[in-house]
Amino acid sequence: MSALPFHPGQRAEIRRTVTEADLVAFAGLSGDLNPLHTDAVYAARTRFRQRIAHGALLAGWISAVLGTRLPGPGGILMSFRLRFLRPTCVGDTVTAWAEVAAVRADKPVVTLRVGCDNQRGETVVEGEAVCYWEPVQEG
Amino acid sequence: MSALPFHPGQRAEIRRTVTEADLVAFAGLSGDLNPLHTDAVYAARTRFRQRIAHGALLAGWISAVLGTRLPGPGGILMSFRLRFLRPTCVGDTVTAWAEVAAVRADKPVVTLRVGCDNQRGETVVEGEAVCYWEPVQEG
Repeated sequence: MSALPFHPGQRAEIRRTVTEADLVAFAGLSGDLNPLHTDAVYAARTRFRQRIAHGALLAGWISAVLGTRLPGPGGILMSFRLRFLRPTCVGDTVTAWAEVAAVRADKPVVTLRVGCDNQRGETVVEGEAVCYWEPVQEG
Repeated sequence: MSALPFHPGQRAEIRRTVTEADLVAFAGLSGDLNPLHTDAVYAARTRFRQRIAHGALLAGWISAVLGTRLPGPGGILMSFRLRFLRPTCVGDTVTAWAEVAAVRADKPVVTLRVGCDNQRGETVVEGEAVCYWEPVQEG
């Protein structure tokens, strides 16, 4: 039996509406100025017809679930595996989620299924994260 | 023979010094307020002894290589697989890189080895990205 306070099936999520400001801020912070994300004229000519959110920005929202909810503070990301299935556009409302898939008995390591769904219930990203769990005792 | 203008071994990179501003901005944008990234007092009690950069922020810098250099504009991220091997701290200078591993002959799809190295030559992140390549003809 694992001493970790997690069990398979345990789930957490955060939800947010994707704004133009998110794409602009992430483009500046990352340096990813791919016109698919930043140039509406270019993007109109692509299969997506409009600017789409950066995949790594969606990874950031999944990271927020992992770092603040499940496993939460004390979680350290060891690996990330993500597949991008559908575009996410400005105005979409994304639910980033994580669900415990396995808890190691021998080490403080949790494997989680992770993903993002949109407001139509479509999965836009899915994958897996492995986190080390090492919370610090305060005070 | 593939019609894509890429060949295995082709490589691109970007380099940047990690600043406190990067961690703060990414915490706000992603919502990942894990104290490991934002609280110096908490972080001092961890194995890392100081705040470390978010893994998804490093993914963003790799995304910048993919979206602006190789395959560059027109590249669409299909999947990402990353392992986080060492911490990255404020003041580190990170080289994010991508190297073509395989080019599909039947579809415009490129597989790249990706990663980040630090100023000591240590690999801090490594993994793989698969990109669809669909540049738009301008003008």
